[in-house]
This record gives sequence, structure tokens and C-alpha cells, in this order.
Amino acid sequence: MARMKLETLTQFKFSKRYSRVMARSASNSETVFDVVQPIVIDVQTKRDKALRLYTKQFDGATISNFRVSRDEIQKAYKQIHTELLRSLYTATDNIRIVHKAEIQTMTPSSIKPSTGVTIQKRWFPIERIGIYVPGGKATYPSSVLMNTIPAIIAGCTEIIMVTPPRPDGSIDPTVLVAADIAGVSEIYKVGGAQAIAALAYGTETVPKVYKIVGPGNAYVTSAKQLVANSGLVSIDSPAGPSEVLIIADKSANPKFVTADLVCDAEHGDDSTTIFITTSAKLGQTVIQEIKNLIPQFTTKSHIQKSIDRYGAFLLVNSLKQAIEFANGYAAEHVEIMTKNAQTVAKQIQNAGSVFIGDYTCKSAGDYATGANHVLPTSMSAKMYSGLSTYDFLKQVSYQTCTKRGLTAIRKSIEYLAEAEGLPAHKYSCSVRFRNENI
Amino acid sequence: MARMKLETLTQFKFSKRYSRVMARSASNSETVFDVVQPIVIDVQTKRDKALRLYTKQFDGATISNFRVSRDEIQKAYKQIHTELLRSLYTATDNIRIVHKAEIQTMTPSSIKPSTGVTIQKRWFPIERIGIYVPGGKATYPSSVLMNTIPAIIAGCTEIIMVTPPRPDGSIDPTVLVAADIAGVSEIYKVGGAQAIAALAYGTETVPKVYKIVGPGNAYVTSAKQLVANSGLVSIDSPAGPSEVLIIADKSANPKFVTADLVCDAEHGDDSTTIFITTSAKLGQTVIQEIKNLIPQFTTKSHIQKSIDRYGAFLLVNSLKQAIEFANGYAAEHVEIMTKNAQTVAKQIQNAGSVFIGDYTCKSAGDYATGANHVLPTSMSAKMYSGLSTYDFLKQVSYQTCTKRGLTAIRKSIEYLAEAEGLPAHKYSCSVRFRNENI
Repeated sequence: MARMKLETLTQFKFSKRYSRVMARSASNSETVFDVVQPIVIDVQTKRDKALRLYTKQFDGATISNFRVSRDEIQKAYKQIHTELLRSLYTATDNIRIVHKAEIQTMTPSSIKPSTGVTIQKRWFPIERIGIYVPGGKATYPSSVLMNTIPAIIAGCTEIIMVTPPRPDGSIDPTVLVAADIAGVSEIYKVGGAQAIAALAYGTETVPKVYKIVGPGNAYVTSAKQLVANSGLVSIDSPAGPSEVLIIADKSANPKFVTADLVCDAEHGDDSTTIFITTSAKLGQTVIQEIKNLIPQFTTKSHIQKSIDRYGAFLLVNSLKQAIEFANGYAAEHVEIMTKNAQTVAKQIQNAGSVFIGDYTCKSAGDYATGANHVLPTSMSAKMYSGLSTYDFLKQVSYQTCTKRGLTAIRKSIEYLAEAEGLPAHKYSCSVRFRNENI
Repeated sequence: MARMKLETLTQFKFSKRYSRVMARSASNSETVFDVVQPIVIDVQTKRDKALRLYTKQFDGATISNFRVSRDEIQKAYKQIHTELLRSLYTATDNIRIVHKAEIQTMTPSSIKPSTGVTIQKRWFPIERIGIYVPGGKATYPSSVLMNTIPAIIAGCTEIIMVTPPRPDGSIDPTVLVAADIAGVSEIYKVGGAQAIAALAYGTETVPKVYKIVGPGNAYVTSAKQLVANSGLVSIDSPAGPSEVLIIADKSANPKFVTADLVCDAEHGDDSTTIFITTSAKLGQTVIQEIKNLIPQFTTKSHIQKSIDRYGAFLLVNSLKQAIEFANGYAAEHVEIMTKNAQTVAKQIQNAGSVFIGDYTCKSAGDYATGANHVLPTSMSAKMYSGLSTYDFLKQVSYQTCTKRGLTAIRKSIEYLAEAEGLPAHKYSCSVRFRNENI
């Protein structure tokens, strides 16, 4: 715990830890690609047969029928606690409301840039979506909701979920129920790179999709990139370990700050937790509180390791300095616990989501406010948005020129075609005006 | 020219050419990656020095100062024809109007999914954009406009263009003028994989950007994928050879159909031209006209080869059949030359852009209607949109819970956190309600 100490921004910038903390845990291993590529090729050619082999090899499960039956889903409902079921419904309701509001602006548009020229645009749902849901010891039904509901709201008609089976061939019942509540069309018991390949190419049982979303391990990520680079499907934006950056002044409640830092840190050994404050007193209190709090959680090992590696407790002279740092760091989650928190929040432009005030803990957004929790990490909030209905739509443009409309832009077309060395482009315009030559 | 013949859809589907024509020219070579990877690593470590070496090696140019000077740009204006300059301005005006209309829906939104819970969303421009512009014999100033103007309209403040120099160290003047008119901030004389690496990492002279757009050869594409997969930047959607699919009935003018098929085919040996008609007579006439027309163009070799390889002339029983095929094929450009063309067009959902009626030639959209000509190819219109201002924006969400708001969703947060094995997530909510325990 040697590293859990308050330091000034300048001390931090000149520290040995600085570049590691800023870079976070980037991983892009070629060895992963070397494992993934033959699996993908195998699934492309041997299809279900390859899926069966890899599922035996990696998940230890012998699967005869990959598709989860209606029966299994009904049984899952009976296996979970009523309160948990109610919680899934509450979360679903809010996610639906927030994402429905989003799509209301996605209406057809029509514009006439010049007389006789009309450009219309319409949005369409991507027909078939694949959703990857990781298996393993911890399962995340909330991610099932967050990835599925925007696709449903966008109007996608087929939503195919894949998730690795447990060795006995079963799937976590909460995941099954979440998928069913969210509106998943079909669920298949297959995971890893082989599941991604199945969604990209289609097999005898798993349907081909056009876009794949959802988090996974390094093999899943590499397989997604591979099939996306080949143009077979599109994928969601890259997802890394969880991150929180909390900005607080002396008005903040140290217990809330502490709880929220620890909350993010428990995700894994590579989570990042950055705390920035204008109050040395608050900073010291929070550090002491964290030390007291950590041992209380079963996830204490993750908390300790991630704070040691990627945590920082920073003292700044002004909120302006804190905001500037936050915009440069571009964290997945930013919490603002200051006076006039709304005013501070408005100045945060590089973040996945900003949580404002004492009662907006990150965990509220993780589960139940209705905002999407699939957010850009590792500085990518500078160029990517969180998951939304937009990710499940595509836009088509429709152009109409009348003869008068084409006449008005004719010269522009012909001169530009000529400049680009494309005589048939020029001709395809001029032929509309009969007596013209090439 | 043996293959230029009218066939029924059924004949086509059972022909040997079918799978090739449908797949189009997919290329994703590993050998390209093997060339690109060391270049990218070299630029990351040796920066400007590496750029100078590769520019000498690949472009045959010795460049001391990569940045194009204001002087060079001013000189370029004097080198191009007044009519061409006017054409660039006309195109720019229309592209601006269409893309401004787009962004008008991207306003901040606010929604209250439940009492005391507010989710706001705001759009921000991606600060720094890189635009790749290919060099080579043919240059495409229109692409400079199409890639730059949406970024300007989105509000991106720094737009960095890179393009390979000619052996004498110069850049095509029309490209320079197009970049200046469109609003590019800085232009650098560097191309290929080395230019992509420079934009992703930054060098002593080339600034790092957050997103890279613009077409390039296989090396450029591979380098873009490499840096995007590493999470350094985001990139635009994949771009392949040009495609047109024309649906026509007996009301269509065969000269217009012919001109537009040939227009697309002249792009390169791997362009695709699909013609679908309900009229055998029109089909035969068009084929004859094409044969007569091809020899007239300097681009005849491309036209001939691409039609032979990837062209199809299909006779269908009904427009319904044509529409169904078009939605399955998902072409970059679809032209509708039928009676009630608007009604037919409405049924095309998988396409980059749809051109409606006799006077809407594809070349109008390539240059001057104002619609973006950067469009999804190779069936990817099923999941990607054409380039738009959206591609240069990112969305941030802002969440606020009051105590009452958090109380209402508290149970949902706590039960879900517990189900996911995250006790500190549960605690970060419950600590807000003092007397609670873990």
C-alpha cells in the first residue's frame, strides 16, 4: 500500500508511475491473433463441427444442440430470486425510456441544396445483430440488457446472443432471464473466438449477423477485429478495463468518494481509479477511509492491486486544473462531487459518462438509471461515444435531380470529372443534354 | 466480351460467375500486414526520420519540410483553371448545405426516466482529425471535399491532411486548392502506411489525431486497421471498389442507363456494374450501346475488364424481384430508372445512396449534389452508413440522481450488484443511506 498517497499534479507528472497510469493497461498481443486466426478459419470451413470441437476443448462442455430452448429459459425464470427479477425489470424499463428518447431525433430528413436537387436521408435498423456475453465465474446480466435493449429500440429484428456454456452445458440463469426480458431472439451456447466466427460466417445452426457487439476476453476481441477487418461484419468500439475519475472539493462527503473509488477498483486488477481534489484534508481522509474499507470486501485483492498499479490521488490548486486533467485523461466514468457540480460537469467533454453530485454513484449508472453503461475506455472517449441506438442503425441517402437541377450543377460535374481523369463520368452527365458530345 | 449478355436471375444464380460477382473483389492479404507492421513501429520510434526514409523509398521524393506552406497553396490557386475553381466552390456550397442540415438534429437532449433521475446527452466534435488523400496518377479533389467538409461542419478544430508527394516533392494543385477551400488546417507531404502511423502516434512535425478517414491502397487500409485495433485512433468504415446497380423498366432511356453503367465501370478493373431490368428489349439495347460506347473512352480498358469480371445484365419478371435482389446485393450506388421511381426507391433499404429518375446520374452525386460520396461498398451497406457529420462527433452522457431518485432505483442497483458478485458496487449505493450495512 506504499503508493496510496496524496501527491500534487506536478509530483505525479514527474513520477515513474505517470506514463503507466496514463496509458492504462493496453494489450494487443500478436500471440492472441496467432491463436485466433486458425479458429476463425476452422469455423468458416467446418462450421458446427468446429464449434463442437472448440466448445469441448475450451469450455469442457459437450454440446449437441447449441440453441438454448424455450424450456431452458422458462426454467431459468424459476431459478432466480423474485427481487432480482424485479430489479431486472426496473433496469429494463429505465434503459428503454432513455434509449427511446435517443431515437426520436433519428427521423427522415429532406433538404434541397439547390433548385431541382433533393437529398433525403432515412435511418434503417441493421437487420441482424450478434451479442457476445462472456461466461466465466462472474456473469453480467446488466451487460446483456445494455447491449440488447438499444438494438431492440433501433428496430433490429434478429438479435442472436452467444455465450460460452458451463462444463455441464448450462448457462447462468440470470443471464438467460436478462436476455429474454431484453428481447434477444435466439441464444446459442458457444463462446470465444469460435462464437465470433460463427456469427460472422454463419454455420448450420448459428445465423450470420451483420454487426457484433458485447465485451469479451482478448481472444474474443481479436476475433472481432479480424472479422471486422475482413469486412464481414461491423463491431462496437473497443472496450478495456473499467475506469473512474472523481473530482471533489472540500464540500464532498469522504465516505461517498471512498465508496465510489473502491467500487470501480473491484472490477479487476487493471481497473483505474483517479481521485483529484482541491482539498488536502479530503484527500488524506479518503486515503485513510480506503485503507479501512478494502478488507471488508470479498473483492479486496482486485481493489488493492488495481489501486496500486493504476490508481492516483492528486491534489490540485483549482477545479480548473482538475477539469483540464480530466479532459486530457478522458476516463470512462467521471464523478463530480463539488459545489456547483452541474457547472463543473458541463466543462467535461472527454468522458464516457459524467456522474453529477452526491447521489449519483457510478453503480447507479452501471445498473439502473437507464443510461448505457457500455462506454469508451482508455482515452478513447476522445473519439468514441458510449453504446446507443445509433450503433444499431444505418443511414441511406436518396438523391433526386430534375433536369433543371442537373443543369444547374452540370458544369461542376463535368469539370471535376475531367480534372479527375474520368471521361465516362463527364459523359454520363452530358448525355442527358442530348446534343452534347464527349 | 463473351460475358456481356442478358441472362435471367435464375440463370445468373446457377452460373459459375455468380459467387464472384456477389462477393466482389475482397482482398485482405496477410502479406500486406507483414509489410505494414514494421513501418508503423518504425514511425512510432524514429518519427520524422522514418518518414523521410520511407518517403524517399516509396515516393522517390526527398522532403526536408513535410508541411505544405501557405505559399505553395497560394501558387496552386494560380495553377488551376477558373472553371475548375468555380466547380470546386459549387460542390463545396452544396456539400456544406446538405451536411449542415444533418447536424441540426444533433442537439443536446434531456430525459427523466424516473423521478429524480436525469440523463442528459451532448454531442462534441472529435478535436483532431486526420484525412488521408491518395496520390498517384489520378487524384481526387472531390474526395478531399467529401472527407473534410463534414468534419468542419461537425466543428472539428484541427484537420490534418496527409498525401504522398510526387517525385519532385510537389502535390497536385487541385488537391491543394480543394483542401484549402474545404477548410483543412494543415497539409503534410507524406503518404502510405508511414503517414497513417504518423497521424496515430504523432511525430516531431505531424500532429497526433484521434480519428483518421479517407481512402487508400491496401497498405494504407492495413495500417489504418492496425492503429485502430491498437486503440490509438478510430477510423472510417471500410471502402472498396466502386459499385453501381441500376434498376430499369421499359420506360428508361437506354442511353442514360448505358452511360451510367460505363461511368461506374471506368473507376478500375474491380468496379462492379449490375444492371437489372424487366424489359428484355431494353436489356439488349443497353448491351449493344455499351459495346459501341466503350471504345470512345480513354478509360476503356478498366470499363471492359470490370464489366467482364464483375458485371451482370439481369432480366427479371418484376420490379419486386429487382428490389429484392438489390437489397440482398446492397450496392454502394443504386439507380432507379423506372416509372414511379420514387415508389421503387423507397423500397431500397440496403444501399449507400439511391439515385432516382432519369436526371439523377451517379456522377451528379459523385461531385455536386452535396450528398456525401463516401459510401459503404461490398455489401457493407447492410451495416454501415455513408460518411456524415456523425462520423466526426462523439456523444457524452451526464447523469444526475437526487436522493429521492437514487432511493427509487436503489433496490435494483443492490440486487444486481450482488448477482454480479460486486459487493463494493452494492456498498457505493447503500453508503448513501447512512445506517445501511454492507
